[in-house]
Amino acid sequence: MNELSASLMCGNLANLARDITELERAGIDGYHIDIMDGKFVPNFTLGPDFIKRTREITTKPIEVHLMVEQPEHFINLFRQTGADRLTIHAEATTNLQGTLAQIQAAGMQAGVALNPATPLNVLDYVYDVVDYVVIMTVNPGFAGQAFIPAMYSKIAQLNTILHERGLTIPIEVDGNIGADTLPKCKLAGAQYFVGGTSSVYHPGKTLTENVTMTQHLLNGGYLDAKI
Amino acid sequence: MNELSASLMCGNLANLARDITELERAGIDGYHIDIMDGKFVPNFTLGPDFIKRTREITTKPIEVHLMVEQPEHFINLFRQTGADRLTIHAEATTNLQGTLAQIQAAGMQAGVALNPATPLNVLDYVYDVVDYVVIMTVNPGFAGQAFIPAMYSKIAQLNTILHERGLTIPIEVDGNIGADTLPKCKLAGAQYFVGGTSSVYHPGKTLTENVTMTQHLLNGGYLDAKI
Amino acid sequence: MNELSASLMCGNLANLARDITELERAGIDGYHIDIMDGKFVPNFTLGPDFIKRTREITTKPIEVHLMVEQPEHFINLFRQTGADRLTIHAEATTNLQGTLAQIQAAGMQAGVALNPATPLNVLDYVYDVVDYVVIMTVNPGFAGQAFIPAMYSKIAQLNTILHERGLTIPIEVDGNIGADTLPKCKLAGAQYFVGGTSSVYHPGKTLTENVTMTQHLLNGGYLDAKI
Amino acid sequence: MNELSASLMCGNLANLARDITELERAGIDGYHIDIMDGKFVPNFTLGPDFIKRTREITTKPIEVHLMVEQPEHFINLFRQTGADRLTIHAEATTNLQGTLAQIQAAGMQAGVALNPATPLNVLDYVYDVVDYVVIMTVNPGFAGQAFIPAMYSKIAQLNTILHERGLTIPIEVDGNIGADTLPKCKLAGAQYFVGGTSSVYHPGKTLTENVTMTQHLLNGGYLDAKI
Amino acid sequence: MNELSASLMCGNLANLARDITELERAGIDGYHIDIMDGKFVPNFTLGPDFIKRTREITTKPIEVHLMVEQPEHFINLFRQTGADRLTIHAEATTNLQGTLAQIQAAGMQAGVALNPATPLNVLDYVYDVVDYVVIMTVNPGFAGQAFIPAMYSKIAQLNTILHERGLTIPIEVDGNIGADTLPKCKLAGAQYFVGGTSSVYHPGKTLTENVTMTQHLLNGGYLDAKI
Amino acid sequence: MNELSASLMCGNLANLARDITELERAGIDGYHIDIMDGKFVPNFTLGPDFIKRTREITTKPIEVHLMVEQPEHFINLFRQTGADRLTIHAEATTNLQGTLAQIQAAGMQAGVALNPATPLNVLDYVYDVVDYVVIMTVNPGFAGQAFIPAMYSKIAQLNTILHERGLTIPIEVDGNIGADTLPKCKLAGAQYFVGGTSSVYHPGKTLTENVTMTQHLLNGGYLDAKI
Repeated sequence: MNELSASLMCGNLANLARDITELERAGIDGYHIDIMDGKFVPNFTLGPDFIKRTREITTKPIEVHLMVEQPEHFINLFRQTGADRLTIHAEATTNLQGTLAQIQAAGMQAGVALNPATPLNVLDYVYDVVDYVVIMTVNPGFAGQAFIPAMYSKIAQLNTILHERGLTIPIEVDGNIGADTLPKCKLAGAQYFVGGTSSVYHPGKTLTENVTMTQHLLNGGYLDAKI
Repeated sequence: MNELSASLMCGNLANLARDITELERAGIDGYHIDIMDGKFVPNFTLGPDFIKRTREITTKPIEVHLMVEQPEHFINLFRQTGADRLTIHAEATTNLQGTLAQIQAAGMQAGVALNPATPLNVLDYVYDVVDYVVIMTVNPGFAGQAFIPAMYSKIAQLNTILHERGLTIPIEVDGNIGADTLPKCKLAGAQYFVGGTSSVYHPGKTLTENVTMTQHLLNGGYLDAKI
Repeated sequence: MNELSASLMCGNLANLARDITELERAGIDGYHIDIMDGKFVPNFTLGPDFIKRTREITTKPIEVHLMVEQPEHFINLFRQTGADRLTIHAEATTNLQGTLAQIQAAGMQAGVALNPATPLNVLDYVYDVVDYVVIMTVNPGFAGQAFIPAMYSKIAQLNTILHERGLTIPIEVDGNIGADTLPKCKLAGAQYFVGGTSSVYHPGKTLTENVTMTQHLLNGGYLDAKI
Repeated sequence: MNELSASLMCGNLANLARDITELERAGIDGYHIDIMDGKFVPNFTLGPDFIKRTREITTKPIEVHLMVEQPEHFINLFRQTGADRLTIHAEATTNLQGTLAQIQAAGMQAGVALNPATPLNVLDYVYDVVDYVVIMTVNPGFAGQAFIPAMYSKIAQLNTILHERGLTIPIEVDGNIGADTLPKCKLAGAQYFVGGTSSVYHPGKTLTENVTMTQHLLNGGYLDAKI
Repeated sequence: MNELSASLMCGNLANLARDITELERAGIDGYHIDIMDGKFVPNFTLGPDFIKRTREITTKPIEVHLMVEQPEHFINLFRQTGADRLTIHAEATTNLQGTLAQIQAAGMQAGVALNPATPLNVLDYVYDVVDYVVIMTVNPGFAGQAFIPAMYSKIAQLNTILHERGLTIPIEVDGNIGADTLPKCKLAGAQYFVGGTSSVYHPGKTLTENVTMTQHLLNGGYLDAKI
Repeated sequence: MNELSASLMCGNLANLARDITELERAGIDGYHIDIMDGKFVPNFTLGPDFIKRTREITTKPIEVHLMVEQPEHFINLFRQTGADRLTIHAEATTNLQGTLAQIQAAGMQAGVALNPATPLNVLDYVYDVVDYVVIMTVNPGFAGQAFIPAMYSKIAQLNTILHERGLTIPIEVDGNIGADTLPKCKLAGAQYFVGGTSSVYHPGKTLTENVTMTQHLLNGGYLDAKI
């Protein structure tokens, strides 16, 4: 089952409520909110108060993506925000199993994100505490990065592993997901798609147009014009 | 010359543009935007994209308050946002003089913030590269903290030092600034006031009412009713 | 050759000498002492002075398990304690080979411990400087954690690798080793067993009863009643 | 009011209960338990489980001395141990005021320890959240260090400050407190004395003899023979 | 195509220019300059100014080997030195792909070095942004370390992977490369050889003799006498 | 007694021996070697091997200036180099007294350097373990920085403190010491002068000319032409 979420850090942060209203009418499936600590990635974005405010104005799934070192220290902080899903990076903790298990115990879905270079065997012993896996398809930290072609085969390889293990854990792709890359990611096995400046927030179109066309693309539709 | 700024992290993050419109009509003097790294303080808030968006919709001064370790790494990141003032913490760097000088060289006003326990002599040799000093009147990291009474004498002591040196560097106070604390801070020598949930965003009143009353208070007016 | 060691942090720290006397009479094979730094795991336990004191009252093998970051800094500190074995975590150092080689050069056996999520290929190039491998079967840091079922196959996979390489390096299991888990770990290939609150220090029985029953179990005996 | 506490890390860790029984009969006033993280000081000692066990066998005050970085992360961990007093180092946190206030809010007395070089003005704005101040009279981390003579005047200077402020906060001294140093520390203004290998655990005498003589000394008695 | 570079930290740092003149006449192919931060390895060596000076006196390739944590922070610093190649450690960054891509974008060749224990699958998704791979054949940080025998098969395994992928990325070996080890490394598939105290700077011979004999060896020549 | 040392990182690193020969003939008093870790300052320079080589070719005092975090970890490393003086930064350690005492115990003179913003009271309790104090007159890390005018009064204030305490500890100044600044520093009380690109290595003159003129200046001579 495919899902398209909007990466709120790419949107108009001055008019979040208005944007969310339009995104929901246009058929968005959920929201993706990045949190950065200036260390794991050299940037800063949003925080718990922003998530709480988003929670007040939508009932759709909210995924919080922690691009922070030692995410185990922040599970309580984000549990209180009303987020549905909490994603941590495999590279950011020495205790991946325990951190994922704590997220689930806190009542959220637990996701693990892999930076582009990170090999897939870091997942070998955590599949039973993972609700979804995020393949970073760009280097994390900033909007507008280029898609890394080696990620198509990474998605496909993870998909193969999941099938061999008989698992139905969804693969999410995050980074430069648009007309050029989305179909290939889907073909490789991705199911969750984070839409940023290459799709949901594509300049020169309305949010409604962007979501409609991206959903059309996601559902296998032919795309007359590039979004 | 007194100034009242709105701490945007305390506001309605879903409707920033609408809030700013109302704040400006009501007579706000500027904006205060906190940036947190989860290390210097155990929380996260906002980032450069949020500042840029704020810059687009106001011409009033924007102060960015870095509650982050090693702020010297992030001067370029924030210079590009259009911020007018950049505040760093004395406790966050081993090279306070150099970092302040770099901020000024980047075309911004440089502020140094002191956590409640930090002694005033950390300023002894940086007065010539400081545009304003921020006395934290609560412990940093979260809204809704209690005012620390020992800070009144800290403000007064700094004010004395500044007079003795013949300096006119403004003192800013940040944390639980409201009807109870603002007049005493002003009396002690503060000139810049950051308004959060105890004043500008006081629950139960409109932004217009809150700003009007806080400005009234700031200008020495008598306050019939507590804000 | 199977070995059962007592994890001293689980014992009665007010009467160490008395406990050791009883444990030795009951047939314990050695001692396991955890060292924590509050960073690699968010807890603290024991230190070199405790190990030295233990050394004075037993001649059985003492294994020191460093749950600390950058264990390479502490080899000298622990060499002086009289410990026989020093275990470090693969996740805690960027120079695993060198650290293990230093431990051996310091006259101790060198062990490498793997957190539950850590893949087995981190061992690919260190087998010739490893005296034993510790599979963490719970998340490290606190007593009383639940056994992670995925660890059975991890033990078995490591056992297979060791056989394929013609190596006789013992596999140690650490965490919630008791009546339910010990036989399955042994079946999977474990030889060294760390006994904590689920076996050696099981509440409601004497140390003698607990050690006797656990050794019985370890030797393949039938267990009438759960310890 | 003078107090003599026993530094348990200096004692016989194999027979804690027996030692405490003897110490209490001999008139000890309380216990001092050091916690080290291998970073703030390059050593490890004891942990929460040891404190809990000590709590079970004494009703006298237990002070826990955190020689750890970022002690604010560990307040909950130690609150649960039954400790009466929690000491943190001024050098270990960028938020001294907040951390001390949190300790008091957790129901413990809050102490601040100063390393030998640390100037006294770090206390300028925290006196209202401090229950006692610990002057380290040796460099922290290991037993058996030499007393630093410059600490006598540091104690006296702190004593003067406290008198000038009209405060009755006790000054504690920690490190090589014995026949040579205790009287001078007392004269300088110290009231709490941590007894280690130079007094309570002085080799060649019983605990009873050591405590008796040290208390005698503390009460101003003449000392015929050196302990 | 084989290459022999001289590791300048092993040379006579008092007469760099003279040494380089002799090395070039003797037929050296390039230079290797180690940079250390005291953290990733517990030592310090050289810096950007030394590289710039070397650049002024040679036109041969200069490789800079960063044995530093978070090398992504230093790409600009070294780009300005005139270095041709910049090597980072896979263990030193959580964003290997991005850092390598940045090095290439800065106009340098990008190399990735692997500590002895590091498994080869850390390279799985970065081959398209790597110009050469450095297999550390000793533990990094100091001259004069012993060659680790397990590295021969590591080189061979990497060579196999590269062939299977159809890649011609050169394998470099660094550490104790001399008469005993060079031929076996070459046989296993290495092409770039860093010469230090076991070859180019072998005591008791001139630089000319050492380079001549090592190049002879490298070209498959028979070695009458050991260098 | 005044001393002029040459900061070797500013010299011609390709011809160290030749430079030292010329510097000694011209009357230099000693050498200053900076060590950087990329963290305390964002640069790298030289290391122990360079110091050893310098030691081989001069008998004059060598001062090693550690611009590194946690210098206590590196005392042994530098003791073995033959350095006479080891300087650490007050901002770089939480245990300044102990680190200075260790340097002296290792047979070297111990110096403490203060970054421009660091207040003088960090020295309050370490004067008896300090052999000289270094006032940084520029921000550390790179050659060619501008002199910070506030440092003149800092030197004078330290000089006053030393006189009041009856101490003869020399004050060293490091950073942009040349014709404009040297006389004022000397007037304020400095005795040790580190010569870099503004004096000893001034472009356009020979080393001999530069040293001669700087010594002339240092000895109170009138300077016809600016060096």
